[in-house]
Amino acid sequence: MMKFQKYHPGYYPPKKNEYRWVKKDHIEQAPAWCSVDLRDGNQALIVPMSLEEKIEFFQMLVAIGFKEIEVGFPAASETEYEFLRTLIDQNMIPEDVTIQVLTQCRDHIIRRTFEAVQGAPKAVIHFYNSTSTAQREQVFKKSREEIKQIAIEGAKLVKQLSEEYEGNFLFEYSPESFTGTEPDYAIEVCNAVLDVMQPTVERPMIINLPVTVEMSLPHIYANQIEYCSDRLKYRDAVILSTHPHNDRGTGVADTELAVLAGAQRVECCLFGNGERTGNVDAITLAMNMYTHGVDPKLDFSNMPEIVAVYERLTRMHVHDRHPYAGSLVFAAFSGSHQDAIAKGMKFREERNSEDWTVPYIPLDPTDISRTYDSDVIRVNSQSGKGGIGYIMEKRFGYNLPARMRENLGYTVKDVSDRHHAELKPDEIMEIFDRVYVNKTKPVIEVKEAHFVQGRRIRAVVDAFINGEEMELFAEGNGRINAVNNAIKKGLDLQYTLESYAEHSLDGTSSSRAIGYVSLVWPDGKRTWGAGRHEDITQCAILALVSAINNRFDKDVRI
Amino acid sequence: MMKFQKYHPGYYPPKKNEYRWVKKDHIEQAPAWCSVDLRDGNQALIVPMSLEEKIEFFQMLVAIGFKEIEVGFPAASETEYEFLRTLIDQNMIPEDVTIQVLTQCRDHIIRRTFEAVQGAPKAVIHFYNSTSTAQREQVFKKSREEIKQIAIEGAKLVKQLSEEYEGNFLFEYSPESFTGTEPDYAIEVCNAVLDVMQPTVERPMIINLPVTVEMSLPHIYANQIEYCSDRLKYRDAVILSTHPHNDRGTGVADTELAVLAGAQRVECCLFGNGERTGNVDAITLAMNMYTHGVDPKLDFSNMPEIVAVYERLTRMHVHDRHPYAGSLVFAAFSGSHQDAIAKGMKFREERNSEDWTVPYIPLDPTDISRTYDSDVIRVNSQSGKGGIGYIMEKRFGYNLPARMRENLGYTVKDVSDRHHAELKPDEIMEIFDRVYVNKTKPVIEVKEAHFVQGRRIRAVVDAFINGEEMELFAEGNGRINAVNNAIKKGLDLQYTLESYAEHSLDGTSSSRAIGYVSLVWPDGKRTWGAGRHEDITQCAILALVSAINNRFDKDVRI
Repeated sequence: MMKFQKYHPGYYPPKKNEYRWVKKDHIEQAPAWCSVDLRDGNQALIVPMSLEEKIEFFQMLVAIGFKEIEVGFPAASETEYEFLRTLIDQNMIPEDVTIQVLTQCRDHIIRRTFEAVQGAPKAVIHFYNSTSTAQREQVFKKSREEIKQIAIEGAKLVKQLSEEYEGNFLFEYSPESFTGTEPDYAIEVCNAVLDVMQPTVERPMIINLPVTVEMSLPHIYANQIEYCSDRLKYRDAVILSTHPHNDRGTGVADTELAVLAGAQRVECCLFGNGERTGNVDAITLAMNMYTHGVDPKLDFSNMPEIVAVYERLTRMHVHDRHPYAGSLVFAAFSGSHQDAIAKGMKFREERNSEDWTVPYIPLDPTDISRTYDSDVIRVNSQSGKGGIGYIMEKRFGYNLPARMRENLGYTVKDVSDRHHAELKPDEIMEIFDRVYVNKTKPVIEVKEAHFVQGRRIRAVVDAFINGEEMELFAEGNGRINAVNNAIKKGLDLQYTLESYAEHSLDGTSSSRAIGYVSLVWPDGKRTWGAGRHEDITQCAILALVSAINNRFDKDVRI
Repeated sequence: MMKFQKYHPGYYPPKKNEYRWVKKDHIEQAPAWCSVDLRDGNQALIVPMSLEEKIEFFQMLVAIGFKEIEVGFPAASETEYEFLRTLIDQNMIPEDVTIQVLTQCRDHIIRRTFEAVQGAPKAVIHFYNSTSTAQREQVFKKSREEIKQIAIEGAKLVKQLSEEYEGNFLFEYSPESFTGTEPDYAIEVCNAVLDVMQPTVERPMIINLPVTVEMSLPHIYANQIEYCSDRLKYRDAVILSTHPHNDRGTGVADTELAVLAGAQRVECCLFGNGERTGNVDAITLAMNMYTHGVDPKLDFSNMPEIVAVYERLTRMHVHDRHPYAGSLVFAAFSGSHQDAIAKGMKFREERNSEDWTVPYIPLDPTDISRTYDSDVIRVNSQSGKGGIGYIMEKRFGYNLPARMRENLGYTVKDVSDRHHAELKPDEIMEIFDRVYVNKTKPVIEVKEAHFVQGRRIRAVVDAFINGEEMELFAEGNGRINAVNNAIKKGLDLQYTLESYAEHSLDGTSSSRAIGYVSLVWPDGKRTWGAGRHEDITQCAILALVSAINNRFDKDVRI
């Protein structure tokens, strides 16, 4: 029995809104990105990163293109202090990258923060205090006015020390637990801080309205952002920032709608690492823009390596269904999806189009160093002819006739169903060979065929019938027709050779070819065979013989 | 280098909207839930479930409270056919549960579907065809009119067969790939189907507008739902359904906003299983309502078991940060969070309040059979006095003085930092004992203390000083004061006994007590000691002696 009655929404929708954001279609340009992997992400790990691991992670963030990186809470942790000093003292911070350090609005912590950060080429001092009703009442036991004073006193000290210490300092203030704070009060506190800091258009200040805990539906947060954006003082000199967590599974939506509503900057982590359910995922946000044709200003073109490094350093796992990055997100097992994807890929090839419009796959996997072959079309008991045909064609160069694809499709599904397992391309090729090419217990085997050319062609076929050597002969209007007639006559079989197709296997005349034959039998059933040989006549004979043998092979689906 | 230019939004925002949904604060009642785990979820598994596994999963879904369960695509798969027949023939479908089967709008598939489902007590026949511009152009190569005809012909056959076959049939139609379809065209197709099916208020029909592939921001989908909801014919006789996937990581947001916008029914999977990035997660949706005080009509009170069964049957992993269900989603490692949580828990206890308002934890973990102790407060190098004090108090009953908590906090953090590992409660207790209680190389050890009571109390202390036995003595105004004076005099030490506190360890006078002592030394430094004993005087003496020894222990942080 679940006790839902003990919960009451702890958030405060604005009393009125313009709702301008809801009329916008999509995000038109990338926000400023700030990685908080090394602070919020790291503090949520069971085993936080070591100094060396943090340095490697920092370098990966720089390579991806982050220009703002929060590196820690140096006053609260020895290791974070040491990491910060290493970055500064060993000149590891590129010129175009700004580091950011976090500090509570407490006197000795702010002082220690300035000590830690001195000498940094450029640094954001990010100070915060908690403003929610829950924290005011339960944790700080202070009035609204007293809590506001904490922010003001913090701002004053930050401003004072920034003038005393050498360095290029920028500032960020967060009313922490914003999502549990009355918007009007949050604005009052932020404006009081802004009055102390006096930002200018030339030297703007960041105001960050975090989703410390996700408490509402995402449109409520967008409404809050719009409301605050419209009411902050010095608005031209304010960079409005968002920092969503994901407690309700809507961190990405919070961020996207907030950006539409006026947020200009996003604090995020790779793969949604971070406290509890994580910080909002930088990768999903960036790739969502990318697949709308917007430059995300972050480069994930080497996704598999980023996944590997992330997993090694954080000891966290990237989920198989993680958007854009998970192992299964390009996979289509289902027949109808595979069919549509194969057709979409062909459509694109035929038009030689660079544009990506393939059904079911919003991102071209090769854009992030994934592959079509092994990532997209995957085969199990749910799969169909489209996907299996696609693998035969793209992976092995076998362009099967449409109805033979269907026949192979059912055969492969049966195997997968029986073995209760996914089948890899090589296993599909093995099934193809076993069923259509190399019959192990043939009823008929052709040893050799000779031809005598006259008005019609006469074939003399040296064959084993159930292991016994026999010579069969007949005439026909071509070599295959003659062999076919010889076999039909010799074995007294009543089938019709319905179709024959053949193509070379690697595009040169000296290479092997593959031939496909279908026979229709008096009871309406159809069998398929294939033959592989350098000589095209041999190809056809082998295919024909296999198709006949498949009539007698109880293990083959007809 | 990333090639964002090759992407163009493939979705169609409605030309106009009322935007009524954006003014709503939260979802006021649970939608009708339909699990698609056994169809959409299963078809996305590397290894689909076996018959036995599907039956176990079905029973779990019933136990959770699902009243509508899509059980497969019986015309497309032998195993799904067999599963469906097993459910029906073995009477495994509870009276209040409706099963649902999926079929494309193709003649032989619809016919086979009716064969498969005959005899079911109640079944939804869910028929669909794909309507998006991409699929019309690339896959079907048909006009809008031709695609609409596929839907109409499908509807006619479904209606006809439903009259021919015995059974209680309900109907669902999906314009598949709705999110890539022009809303006006989707409405046209749905209305044409509705005209065939002629639903009534007494026998309504489901119209499902799926997010087959997530292509837009979530508010666009809400706008589409509102737009369609306003324009569907027979609206009172239509149950408007949503079926979101999660390609852009906003499946939950799509669903929630769609419900505000008029969707009455949700197709979803446990833990967001399903094609590619998954179907929308039933658990997040339900628990989001739950934490807003709304009855979700699904019961996840036994979450750990549901996780275990799900992982075993699907061979998928529930991510550590999965909302409400992941192993880390209640965890707080960070000092400031731990402190706030501990205060929030205390606040709640003091008021004896059932209401849940604890900061940083949106859900009371015990509501889903998780625990405070092992799930919430977890300790590593990021942790602080709040969390460590909480563990000492809640787990072991040690109510440390505030400043001693801080001292222990730093000590524990150092150990975690050095060992690069999380520390479990027992390991924290070990550290406490080693540092404050059982000093291994004591400078001073008290063997025995005798007291002579006069106007003042005289203590005779039999002690080992650096291993050498000595007798120390002095007077004081109490026993502890006398012992303290004896030691100070005997060892010529200049400290002040700053504080002393003591409490019993399990609340009875015959049980052991723990005493805490702090000393302040001439250089301003402070040391702590603790003593555990049945006798409260012994307790205090042991604590005092430990605090003295800690002045000389180089491994102890002072």
